[in-house]
Amino acid sequence: MEKKVSGSVINRLPRYYRHLTDLYDSGIERISSKELSRRMDVTASQIRQDLNCFGGFGQQGYGYNVEFLKTEIANILGLNRGYTAVMVGAGNMGRTFATNTKFESRGFKLIGIFDSDPAVVGSDIHGIKVSAYSEIGDFIKENKPCMAILTVPKEATKSVAEELIGYGIKAFMNFSYSELRQMEGIIVENVHLGDSLMRLSYKISEKDESGER
Amino acid sequence: MEKKVSGSVINRLPRYYRHLTDLYDSGIERISSKELSRRMDVTASQIRQDLNCFGGFGQQGYGYNVEFLKTEIANILGLNRGYTAVMVGAGNMGRTFATNTKFESRGFKLIGIFDSDPAVVGSDIHGIKVSAYSEIGDFIKENKPCMAILTVPKEATKSVAEELIGYGIKAFMNFSYSELRQMEGIIVENVHLGDSLMRLSYKISEKDESGER
Repeated sequence: MEKKVSGSVINRLPRYYRHLTDLYDSGIERISSKELSRRMDVTASQIRQDLNCFGGFGQQGYGYNVEFLKTEIANILGLNRGYTAVMVGAGNMGRTFATNTKFESRGFKLIGIFDSDPAVVGSDIHGIKVSAYSEIGDFIKENKPCMAILTVPKEATKSVAEELIGYGIKAFMNFSYSELRQMEGIIVENVHLGDSLMRLSYKISEKDESGER
Repeated sequence: MEKKVSGSVINRLPRYYRHLTDLYDSGIERISSKELSRRMDVTASQIRQDLNCFGGFGQQGYGYNVEFLKTEIANILGLNRGYTAVMVGAGNMGRTFATNTKFESRGFKLIGIFDSDPAVVGSDIHGIKVSAYSEIGDFIKENKPCMAILTVPKEATKSVAEELIGYGIKAFMNFSYSELRQMEGIIVENVHLGDSLMRLSYKISEKDESGER
């Protein structure tokens, strides 16, 4: 990739990738920006503008080649680079995320799950045996995962992150209620499902006030 | 609320609300935009700009009154309006979300959980008994929940949403892999945890290419 792509386009790319994967899986070989626009509830001009950032894969009167575009977006997102991840925390959230997520088509292979609770160490989550948290340092030094997913209690977030950074981890997906601050040279993605509830609350109250309900 | 607030400010408000709640819970009564900026990794001018949308709660040399600002943002988000929600799907994701989420401080009271699998009907999730999905129509007509949370299999998403709209539901938080399309008069928030993985993959590969690793 030669060209710097804007942050807002990058934020939209995973959604393009999901839609193109669904189209590809349904055997659809090409799609017009108009039809993609209808499926994604995005204007056709937004789609053309977003996808033109990468040199424009569409041809007038032909539309987009679904497989080609899907592959290009996967390349841009780095989904085929074989990145690896470990998860810390084998509670409800860890278990659900590890079980429900198509890691490998999202760019990562989950190679280890760790917990400090002896009651869950040794149990199996989606084919991975939960290891004792005390073993994580050696595991990281040996296997050099690119990323750690944190599903630990709020109080433990900062200290676990600092310990893992000490072992060489440079990226985090953090599910715990406590936000990880941005740190120099460290990539952080904080996930807050409650924020979606608050946005819904706002939208419902806005509609209430406009008298639509 | 008199003034129309932009979508991007609204998207940031839940985060302000979380940070202000943490400050309030720690007994902090007032905070400067500089200190709030440091804690939130947002520029102080961004904070002033965002919060000035609502008439500006800050005073030069005094900073923001934490409780007042938290309460104002809660009012704007409609968190104190006693909205109610039902959940459809008592699998891993439904169970985890119902258990881990502070619904009431996020604007909603969860009043019912439904599933079509007889094996989970009657079980208890965080104090709520799972009911048979066949009973949801009567329940909605009687209790008029404002919103439904869908944690159903991909294939069922569209038909469940259509059925619930028929019963009067006008807002959805959708966790299933299949996106719900925007529909006239219906509020939809689709949640895709895998998108965070793809964004991380992008950021890691971008860093790889810049030779930082």
